[in-house]
Amino acid sequence: MAPVLALVGATGAVGTVMVDIMNSRPHWPWGEVRLIASPRSAGKKITVRGQELTVRALAPEVFDGVDIAMFDVPDAVSAEWAPIAAARGAVAVDNSGAFRMDPDVPLVVPEVNADKVDDRPRGIISNPNCTTLSMMAALGALHPTFGLRELVVASYQAASGAGQDGIDRLQAEAAAVAGKGVGDRAGDVREAIAAAGLPADSPFPAPLAFNVVPWAGSAKEDGWASEELKVRNESRKILGIPDLKVSATCVRVPVVTTHSLAVHATFAEPVTVAQAHELFEAAPTLVLRDDPANGVFPTPADVVGADPTYVGRVRQALDFPNTLDFFVCGDNLRKGAALNTYEIAEVLAARA
Amino acid sequence: MAPVLALVGATGAVGTVMVDIMNSRPHWPWGEVRLIASPRSAGKKITVRGQELTVRALAPEVFDGVDIAMFDVPDAVSAEWAPIAAARGAVAVDNSGAFRMDPDVPLVVPEVNADKVDDRPRGIISNPNCTTLSMMAALGALHPTFGLRELVVASYQAASGAGQDGIDRLQAEAAAVAGKGVGDRAGDVREAIAAAGLPADSPFPAPLAFNVVPWAGSAKEDGWASEELKVRNESRKILGIPDLKVSATCVRVPVVTTHSLAVHATFAEPVTVAQAHELFEAAPTLVLRDDPANGVFPTPADVVGADPTYVGRVRQALDFPNTLDFFVCGDNLRKGAALNTYEIAEVLAARA
Repeated sequence: MAPVLALVGATGAVGTVMVDIMNSRPHWPWGEVRLIASPRSAGKKITVRGQELTVRALAPEVFDGVDIAMFDVPDAVSAEWAPIAAARGAVAVDNSGAFRMDPDVPLVVPEVNADKVDDRPRGIISNPNCTTLSMMAALGALHPTFGLRELVVASYQAASGAGQDGIDRLQAEAAAVAGKGVGDRAGDVREAIAAAGLPADSPFPAPLAFNVVPWAGSAKEDGWASEELKVRNESRKILGIPDLKVSATCVRVPVVTTHSLAVHATFAEPVTVAQAHELFEAAPTLVLRDDPANGVFPTPADVVGADPTYVGRVRQALDFPNTLDFFVCGDNLRKGAALNTYEIAEVLAARA
Repeated sequence: MAPVLALVGATGAVGTVMVDIMNSRPHWPWGEVRLIASPRSAGKKITVRGQELTVRALAPEVFDGVDIAMFDVPDAVSAEWAPIAAARGAVAVDNSGAFRMDPDVPLVVPEVNADKVDDRPRGIISNPNCTTLSMMAALGALHPTFGLRELVVASYQAASGAGQDGIDRLQAEAAAVAGKGVGDRAGDVREAIAAAGLPADSPFPAPLAFNVVPWAGSAKEDGWASEELKVRNESRKILGIPDLKVSATCVRVPVVTTHSLAVHATFAEPVTVAQAHELFEAAPTLVLRDDPANGVFPTPADVVGADPTYVGRVRQALDFPNTLDFFVCGDNLRKGAALNTYEIAEVLAARA
């Protein structure tokens, strides 16, 4: 029997990308697909591979007979419902932050640690945070050979990391500031946004158009942002390096979709640019773009919508032994969210 | 006799900011000001402290009787004319890259190494690159107490680092993409910019609106950008730490003016957030904005036009001993260029 797949949160920003992915995937292992959302979205029609499906309301019985249930919903919804799906016999693949650091829940990036899917005592598998995910394919390509020891990371995170509200806010702010000649006086960006009638309440704690905002997530101890601690803790768990040294600074930039990261990675062994290029080129989910003198490097506007992670600007650190500096771009709604979740489901289907 | 000050490049982007600074400075030590530019700008009238001055054409004799000549012109113009000014008896204070790494030319940030102005065998003093300058006040406040050893830096550089052309291009690109709903498909930003009729030739090697561009300057050896090597080499020279370990990744962002940097700084001695806060608050050219849980951190849109460097997001690295992570914002046309040059001239005037 071909396995049954459920998608919880089918009508949200990530759920919509997930339906796109299901519609374009070359291989189709599933016998049945169930689309699930909140009662308010139930009854909507969505076409998956030529079949019009009706969205069902979230309820315990919708998981009966489901083999794999993917969750693209807020943390609190996952925290309540992923265990219910598991209790009804499904493997829950969860894209929220609810279970990522649970020692009984594997945190999986298929090209790095696919084998971990089998070790799931709670019947739940977690999908990493999108910022962490943006660099995992590149680090996963290097770590087995050179032994990752330290990471210093600065992020350039897109508005869509804050969901559809984040996209809408950036688009509205961009329209408010464009053509006004602002950006050369303190506060003129804020004034242009207010003059356009945008509400003071924003998904971001400062203007994002013509600005960068060095804060993502919520406040944790000692001045750290939750997003920065996720990068540290999730990298350690995915790569299986419990003592990996990590410092991350997370910054939102006025980009619609696709996160970028400047990565400074130190290894146990010496590593050259040529060796890194070879491993990056051999990795099926990476695309190398590294000829900056000729304008060849990854940028979010050129990467958005793509499945692979793009990597470039690979340099051997001049003063730090065994260290590479490089730049990665990954679509935070695809590999950073929906695609990785779906790839975990595919791994499970292949083992069924 | 009060000293005579000349400004070469009075009509350019930085020169214009310099005139603003001269007009707003509380103390005025100068007996005469001469404004100098290319022959094509000669004859223009510019008001300095209530006096209408006529811009003179660059020529050797305009430096006769000048005590201090500030240069805000391209590298090649400085390389030719700063020595001419020096030969005519002026001290040349140069904001170009022509002399920064010359061992016979001091590279000065007054609050860090003002004493170096006296050691100028060529009669020339250099002003640092704007990216390096953005973090010098903060590092200069910490280094004497804790002993800086290592820097890992990622930049968020404004369009105006590429001059007025850079500002104009970002403003035009922003108008081209705003309200079009682009940014969610690879290439749609490029298409919107082309559809608006903007020339393919840009000061930036990729679209900057709704994008970030991990490249600034020209190509140097082994994949490094000139801007990244300037951060390394100029930091070493200004701070007087010839073996300072530095890795920088320079990235252009869609901000009009004010550079930001995510700084990971390792010291010889242990350093706490409280100690860093105390030194930052005591530094006259720094403003501390560090209460992120309440939305208090520096952003370029709030800092542009200000003289001080703003610093925030100060954290003790969790895994790296003696290490702080922090974020700085500095107006790249003011402290990053015109202001620091003028402050060097003021130091010289005070010693005359």
